[in-house]
Amino acid sequence: MPHIIKAGLVGVTGYTGMELARLMTHHSSMELVRVTSRKEAGKKLADIYPFLNRLPLGDLVITRPDPADLAECDVVFLAVPHKTAMEIAALLLDEGVKVVDLSADFRINDKATYEKWYDVEHTRSELLSEAVYGLPELYLDRIMGARLIANPGCYPTSAILGLAPALSGSLVETGDIVVDAKSGASGAGRGAKVGTLFCEVADNFRAYGLPTHRHTPEIEQEVSKLAGADVTVSFNTHLLPIDRGILSTIYTKLKADADLDAIHAAYTEFYADKPMVRVLPKGQLPETRYVRGTVFCDIGLVVDPRTGRLIILSAIDNLCRGASGQALMNANLICGLDIDEGLPMAPLMP
Amino acid sequence: MPHIIKAGLVGVTGYTGMELARLMTHHSSMELVRVTSRKEAGKKLADIYPFLNRLPLGDLVITRPDPADLAECDVVFLAVPHKTAMEIAALLLDEGVKVVDLSADFRINDKATYEKWYDVEHTRSELLSEAVYGLPELYLDRIMGARLIANPGCYPTSAILGLAPALSGSLVETGDIVVDAKSGASGAGRGAKVGTLFCEVADNFRAYGLPTHRHTPEIEQEVSKLAGADVTVSFNTHLLPIDRGILSTIYTKLKADADLDAIHAAYTEFYADKPMVRVLPKGQLPETRYVRGTVFCDIGLVVDPRTGRLIILSAIDNLCRGASGQALMNANLICGLDIDEGLPMAPLMP
Amino acid sequence: MPHIIKAGLVGVTGYTGMELARLMTHHSSMELVRVTSRKEAGKKLADIYPFLNRLPLGDLVITRPDPADLAECDVVFLAVPHKTAMEIAALLLDEGVKVVDLSADFRINDKATYEKWYDVEHTRSELLSEAVYGLPELYLDRIMGARLIANPGCYPTSAILGLAPALSGSLVETGDIVVDAKSGASGAGRGAKVGTLFCEVADNFRAYGLPTHRHTPEIEQEVSKLAGADVTVSFNTHLLPIDRGILSTIYTKLKADADLDAIHAAYTEFYADKPMVRVLPKGQLPETRYVRGTVFCDIGLVVDPRTGRLIILSAIDNLCRGASGQALMNANLICGLDIDEGLPMAPLMP
Amino acid sequence: MPHIIKAGLVGVTGYTGMELARLMTHHSSMELVRVTSRKEAGKKLADIYPFLNRLPLGDLVITRPDPADLAECDVVFLAVPHKTAMEIAALLLDEGVKVVDLSADFRINDKATYEKWYDVEHTRSELLSEAVYGLPELYLDRIMGARLIANPGCYPTSAILGLAPALSGSLVETGDIVVDAKSGASGAGRGAKVGTLFCEVADNFRAYGLPTHRHTPEIEQEVSKLAGADVTVSFNTHLLPIDRGILSTIYTKLKADADLDAIHAAYTEFYADKPMVRVLPKGQLPETRYVRGTVFCDIGLVVDPRTGRLIILSAIDNLCRGASGQALMNANLICGLDIDEGLPMAPLMP
Repeated sequence: MPHIIKAGLVGVTGYTGMELARLMTHHSSMELVRVTSRKEAGKKLADIYPFLNRLPLGDLVITRPDPADLAECDVVFLAVPHKTAMEIAALLLDEGVKVVDLSADFRINDKATYEKWYDVEHTRSELLSEAVYGLPELYLDRIMGARLIANPGCYPTSAILGLAPALSGSLVETGDIVVDAKSGASGAGRGAKVGTLFCEVADNFRAYGLPTHRHTPEIEQEVSKLAGADVTVSFNTHLLPIDRGILSTIYTKLKADADLDAIHAAYTEFYADKPMVRVLPKGQLPETRYVRGTVFCDIGLVVDPRTGRLIILSAIDNLCRGASGQALMNANLICGLDIDEGLPMAPLMP
Repeated sequence: MPHIIKAGLVGVTGYTGMELARLMTHHSSMELVRVTSRKEAGKKLADIYPFLNRLPLGDLVITRPDPADLAECDVVFLAVPHKTAMEIAALLLDEGVKVVDLSADFRINDKATYEKWYDVEHTRSELLSEAVYGLPELYLDRIMGARLIANPGCYPTSAILGLAPALSGSLVETGDIVVDAKSGASGAGRGAKVGTLFCEVADNFRAYGLPTHRHTPEIEQEVSKLAGADVTVSFNTHLLPIDRGILSTIYTKLKADADLDAIHAAYTEFYADKPMVRVLPKGQLPETRYVRGTVFCDIGLVVDPRTGRLIILSAIDNLCRGASGQALMNANLICGLDIDEGLPMAPLMP
Repeated sequence: MPHIIKAGLVGVTGYTGMELARLMTHHSSMELVRVTSRKEAGKKLADIYPFLNRLPLGDLVITRPDPADLAECDVVFLAVPHKTAMEIAALLLDEGVKVVDLSADFRINDKATYEKWYDVEHTRSELLSEAVYGLPELYLDRIMGARLIANPGCYPTSAILGLAPALSGSLVETGDIVVDAKSGASGAGRGAKVGTLFCEVADNFRAYGLPTHRHTPEIEQEVSKLAGADVTVSFNTHLLPIDRGILSTIYTKLKADADLDAIHAAYTEFYADKPMVRVLPKGQLPETRYVRGTVFCDIGLVVDPRTGRLIILSAIDNLCRGASGQALMNANLICGLDIDEGLPMAPLMP
Repeated sequence: MPHIIKAGLVGVTGYTGMELARLMTHHSSMELVRVTSRKEAGKKLADIYPFLNRLPLGDLVITRPDPADLAECDVVFLAVPHKTAMEIAALLLDEGVKVVDLSADFRINDKATYEKWYDVEHTRSELLSEAVYGLPELYLDRIMGARLIANPGCYPTSAILGLAPALSGSLVETGDIVVDAKSGASGAGRGAKVGTLFCEVADNFRAYGLPTHRHTPEIEQEVSKLAGADVTVSFNTHLLPIDRGILSTIYTKLKADADLDAIHAAYTEFYADKPMVRVLPKGQLPETRYVRGTVFCDIGLVVDPRTGRLIILSAIDNLCRGASGQALMNANLICGLDIDEGLPMAPLMP
């Protein structure tokens, strides 16, 4: 009988915590043995998430987040706000526990950049060089050997995967990239705010956070590495009246001689052995529902000869691929499992 | 030039306050001269409601709720929680200001019943006998002479208007009435709560508050008067993933000899001179969108000979007919205006 | 290595066909080897369902529905309209293929009742006595030995499971049952009709089909068996602006001496060894999202002493438990597999 | 008593026809006296649009589209597909009737460009030079003297109004403009198509029509006039799961020395005497709901010094400002009325 990996989850009451609980229900090699929340400690998971009634995880009792308790885990997911995560991560690493941090605390390599965009001091910057950016299509080998994963942001996942083949293959100019991104409301979190009430989000569409969304430096850091040069991205976000899903429409300028066949071939080759990215057949465009509840990133390509542009459409599920599903991919990898264990592959349609 | 009636609004930050601001934009004989909110005092209406930018009301400055200030008004709308409303109402009446109270404080004639269902003491019960229940189809004459209007609840408006012809005409049994009511999310208010976040309401449907919703005694009080006998109603509520609208499906048992023609004729006659209630042609059923943004109550009738039942479908817009629109009908009436002044009649479709 | 059961699907282009394709992606003991559609024959599944790109079923080529081709299957799902299904079922049974029919053709035991409500002739009525009504909580043993399953309707699944313990335990009166049912739009099918366009369904709520919905005789047939007496049900349906989900609010009259503890205990016992029905803890009510994408039926119980009523809330996913998921439960059973093979248990939340 | 202008509507069964019926309910100087539809001729408006029950227009009988009948009208709205409209327009003009054409037939000044993008022959190109593009903020005087109005497309209305001050004031480069536009589903029309079913649009977001949407040449024609130079625009469209509303996010490159104060001042001045365009205060961004049901175009401005871009957010209601509401503005103008007669100014919120 195989060893069952013990996992912990710090911060179970948000949407990313909820999503991780959903995914762990289907995992046969990893078991969620500890979930924490200051506010809900003492309750069972099914008390706060009735959809887990009569499922294995439903009877798991929520505890307060005590690092000593979490030391029994092989791997711990941190689904808490930035700044809070960095200290817990350090404590757990000291206990020999591997950490997948869903916050932004270890995503930005440069301390000063982090502190400027997030407006807090980074008190564990000694770990920045060790942390691995958990985008498996780019850093598979490093992830497999890591102790600390900086799980990517939702928007950056869609933007970077969309741009990677174009930039690493020098297919487009680096000086003129616009990412027009749209996200479902679960990305705004489960805190009680007037702005995310049903009657404020339904039947509506709006931009927000322009032009200083905190995911900007994360995107620029990774696409600059891919391009081998500093890339500035105009990154702009909108709120969709849907629960889940990000669609990024990415505008780039083609270098002189590229056509759709060549670009599509380059994308297909780049992701050939990476089954969680689906480069759609020419002429097909992604839709958020086609990736709902999964870790797929679907990419569609449009060449516009009138304007000399390559338009890249990139869709993910912000909660699954953009947070907890990708965290589980990373946890699988650092624990020596197959990347897709426990992950449902068929989206819920409709 | 006609005298312009001065109106005040206490509590502008909720959905009923917002709705009243919308409606007052189109009113040519009544002007909103004072709006209050403790939290937003000092701002202009357009600051908190950008949809009012460049509209007449947009520049109106919100003040703190001071009865002395409000004394300049001819009529004041109270869009504050129950218990809070009763004291303000009394103070304003003392100042000679007419009051339309959108809370529940003066709807229940019997002090003890109010206190039992709302679990607070009624400190102004001396006004209960004077307050007029503001359902114009039932109490037109009394409303026109009133100082204090108890504006009906949203669910009761739909249930009472649906049942009135059947009960006053003795068409159905009084002992077996079920109201299965469904409401849009604006009925839950504009307070920040996890339960009414977009991601908790969208793509979902659920019942709530069973079997002790506070609108129960209000419905029973009014339908008992119509029936001339004590009527007990099984009243049960559900939350729809829409902004606006209530549809009540009302199950009654027919007395021996009624058929659809007779019942439809009775309904049509009952509402013949009441243009805000539309008894739909036989075979048509109401939809919440057909009354969206209006004060219409649409009624559809189904006779089921297999079960001996009359099923009454009653649809209103919970914010308009179920709250602020009806409040404006009442304010028009107590100020001597036509009942429909300022009220848009064509629903927004789709 | 275990034998892989070969399955076929006649009618892949509707929502129930789509749902079956989704579920079969996760099945390790049964493989979809043949899918048919007159209109889409020649295409691959991923051509019409891009969400299946790069998934095993995505490359399956759609063929025209030829019984000879289907004879290679161990079991065939019929996801075609009533009347069409009965002939195909007979042909397949002759070929030795087991059949799970998702249409209504074999649900009604009595030929005349079927013909009256569905307004067509039943040309294969000789199979009616053999067909087993595929509600595993009621007919587990018979299903396991069956060749032909009449897969229950979506509404009847929710209504019958909600009423079964109350009626078989004589907890409620049989003469006064009202089922107020609400369904998501996928229940209306994937045909192009103005009435189910986004702009006609979104932001709206309406009743339809009153009082003669075709699921009525199916419900009455099964609950009469449970009650041991003829039961007439007032069954009434509404259209929700959601993709998936049915919530039935069922109104019954309690017999004299029942209280909530006793009723809850009776329900819990009735479903004790039936894990796909979850009787919720006292005080909890079901929500459609809690069963989304699963075969769970969630039941909540409310006793209203004021009116002497037991109100039963019953929620399912109309596409999964109400159609294809239940069909797969039945296929598993008639093929000797565990009832839950291939079925995701954790709902997609939010 | 003032003369009441007689209006006709050819094509009442689509969403633009429905919207015009809604608006005409509130008009006191213009009356809809004739509405046509081949398919619904003989019915009353309230038969196909129950929301018009008991409203003045509800009893208007739909007739077949006969130019002789329409000759009694002062002005006729054409809400029929392109190609169909051009012939009817010509016939009506011959009868001395003014025409507001909601189709694309007279929007493109150049016959060849029209024929290339719309793939049909223009058989009435002699009228192209007379037709006035009905965007009142740009062509007020010409509209007031016109016989034939080419009512602008929905997307072009939002894009052109968003770009006009920037291009006419030479604030931005002309060579690098991207319009990322998102529209509600009513823009796809009321025809029965699988692609616009509720279950295909709800809970989803997708791009479509890239990169050859037919509104492209219309936008380029008008913004080129404003810029005084040929402008090529990358115009790309997406489908939102809402009924109404367009938000265009427009990416431009600033010329060297512009800052937000200067740009905001230029926009404010450009639209100073044009009350249907609201340049929002600095820091505010438009939302589709803030213009719902109105002819407002709301514009928000963002300057991003990191990328040297001016990002313009432009929101309209696609059915009202983007079609029928603008058509009514134009009809008012060519009939000598105030531009805003009959138009509701307060949006439906929420």
